[in-house]
Amino acid sequence: MAAGFSTFDNRKIQYIMFEKKDKKPAESKPKLTSLAELGEFGLIDRLTRNVKLHHPETLKGIGDDAAVIDAGASVLLLSTDLLVEGIHFDLTYMPFRHLGYKAAVVNISDIAAMNGVPKQMTVSLAVSSKFSAEALDELYAGVIMACEKYKVDLVGGDTSSNVKGLVISVSIIGEAKKDEIVYRSGARSGDLLCVTGDLGSAYIGLLILEREKSVFQVNPDMQPELSGFDYQIGRQLRPEARTEIRNLLFGIGIKPTSMIDISDGLASEILHICKQSGVGCKLFEGKIPIDEHTREIAKEYKIIPSVAALSGGEDYELLFTVRQEDYEKIKDIAGITIIGHMTAPSEGKYMITPDGKSIPVTAQGWDGMRGK
Amino acid sequence: MAAGFSTFDNRKIQYIMFEKKDKKPAESKPKLTSLAELGEFGLIDRLTRNVKLHHPETLKGIGDDAAVIDAGASVLLLSTDLLVEGIHFDLTYMPFRHLGYKAAVVNISDIAAMNGVPKQMTVSLAVSSKFSAEALDELYAGVIMACEKYKVDLVGGDTSSNVKGLVISVSIIGEAKKDEIVYRSGARSGDLLCVTGDLGSAYIGLLILEREKSVFQVNPDMQPELSGFDYQIGRQLRPEARTEIRNLLFGIGIKPTSMIDISDGLASEILHICKQSGVGCKLFEGKIPIDEHTREIAKEYKIIPSVAALSGGEDYELLFTVRQEDYEKIKDIAGITIIGHMTAPSEGKYMITPDGKSIPVTAQGWDGMRGK
Repeated sequence: MAAGFSTFDNRKIQYIMFEKKDKKPAESKPKLTSLAELGEFGLIDRLTRNVKLHHPETLKGIGDDAAVIDAGASVLLLSTDLLVEGIHFDLTYMPFRHLGYKAAVVNISDIAAMNGVPKQMTVSLAVSSKFSAEALDELYAGVIMACEKYKVDLVGGDTSSNVKGLVISVSIIGEAKKDEIVYRSGARSGDLLCVTGDLGSAYIGLLILEREKSVFQVNPDMQPELSGFDYQIGRQLRPEARTEIRNLLFGIGIKPTSMIDISDGLASEILHICKQSGVGCKLFEGKIPIDEHTREIAKEYKIIPSVAALSGGEDYELLFTVRQEDYEKIKDIAGITIIGHMTAPSEGKYMITPDGKSIPVTAQGWDGMRGK
Repeated sequence: MAAGFSTFDNRKIQYIMFEKKDKKPAESKPKLTSLAELGEFGLIDRLTRNVKLHHPETLKGIGDDAAVIDAGASVLLLSTDLLVEGIHFDLTYMPFRHLGYKAAVVNISDIAAMNGVPKQMTVSLAVSSKFSAEALDELYAGVIMACEKYKVDLVGGDTSSNVKGLVISVSIIGEAKKDEIVYRSGARSGDLLCVTGDLGSAYIGLLILEREKSVFQVNPDMQPELSGFDYQIGRQLRPEARTEIRNLLFGIGIKPTSMIDISDGLASEILHICKQSGVGCKLFEGKIPIDEHTREIAKEYKIIPSVAALSGGEDYELLFTVRQEDYEKIKDIAGITIIGHMTAPSEGKYMITPDGKSIPVTAQGWDGMRGK
């Protein structure tokens, strides 16, 4: 084994090991690229460009909501998500139980987005010594609540101390028949673009919580004004995964041509489908489903409600496309809204406003990096 | 969905949300348990005591090197490991490429410990803005080197910013036939206790690196004195997984009765096998395989060499038991050492020194919490 060690550049080991900050060897001084300038998706593309697959049973690697692995009669789905304190959650207003629930749900949602059934989950924690066992009990209680609700088996994990803060890493396995899997890449020009539930409320819930946090920080005797915002705060602190959509669509004889869950915001997810399917899109702003009360609150915050839906994220609804022939089957299904259709790639990616203007659909950068 | 939200205690949400540090409501003031007093395994037992399994195909949940999931013709293995900066690695002397390699290998080792074949892997990173894309390129280069060597497909992951430092979360899927899987729980009284390779060198490598780091910190003009320690440093910075043992044992007609990989140290791993198999053990100190040079260095550090093996950890060798009838088959296999045998639980767990003394085998607490 000592021999293998020398395949690494020993000079480099020593350089990295004992580098003086003000005295860098010339060969180690390329211009460095900051993560912020790459953005999350740029970074992922860059890091994974040299990845080769070895196993024919790996049907889909990086690039969808989950990897797809051939398991004989069925197909296995594998996905993983990190939740980082100070980036994805704020313990000022996120109770541990909700946090555990949400950590599980965002992973379950990835399996739903592949049209699969969630099955097994691992939960790993890196925790600083400031956390008590009782806090982690609550976190696990939330994970277990989600596992009970969605019938997922918690089968493992890892627990480590952390220098600062809390990091939660969840991995999930799902299952489906081979012909049931829906990728991001299957949308065709003319397909109808559909979304479940309503959008933007999770983001508005976040704004409310952040506002009350600010008030509280200025005056700790002020109690938070949260009454009347149950829906919005619930969407932020305790999202649900739309696992029932699989059966609903199956029941009306529809298999989506593409699907993704809405974690980063409607715009970003539409662009993923467009890119991976090689299509354009026409999205109708007036069709985007938004809760009426959320709409009112957004206006109080001087936010255009559709912007909350397009860029807010964390709604964990499903965005999917169906063939145009399926229009009659799907048009009257409660809880599903047709918001546009896919076009030839040459037609671009546009949102049409109620007064007929065309606006390019653009993503809002890396939410993880912005630290929302 | 708003209705479901109220299943959580809203008073509690608000309390946690806007708690004043000096003014806790009575019902929320139980004595809190620190994580250090529980230890890693105590914490895991506590957090997972309410876990129920829903799926008959989940053959083994929490409690072994990997979960085991029935996948029809074969069985699927799922494991996950966290590596946290400042706890599991020190970037002063750990080059990113080695770190990526090691993060992959420690997971591959978990699959080897189940007698499975590693197949697919996800790698998630939480990184603070101090890291450059070039540093992560190197880290991924190491992951990909390990994936090439061990024929593992990198199929996904998640990338997030972090408030401070670097956290790596790897999950791995392995495969085996149902009757090939080896659990920690299969050892029987009379079984021979065997170990691959040699032990303690990874720990001695860590001591050397820590020593040179101290010297460097005092005088940054001093260059590290690492020559002659390639084996020990290589064992620490770039461990390998013993995936070839599966075929080696199969080739000589042996299926281990129990197996575990040595990540926390020989003593801790033996105790896992004893606990889960419900047996005792008799370990012979003089039989523990330790590299000669490592033995010498240990003595310079005033460390009993066997203590480095028993408590050092990170050797990623395999510890396993075989039936006594397999003695003739295994006794002359290069790279495998018989170090003792299992006993009735009533006989306890003892190490026998070369001069015949019996010493109880004890674990050294939570390595993750001690921050080694």
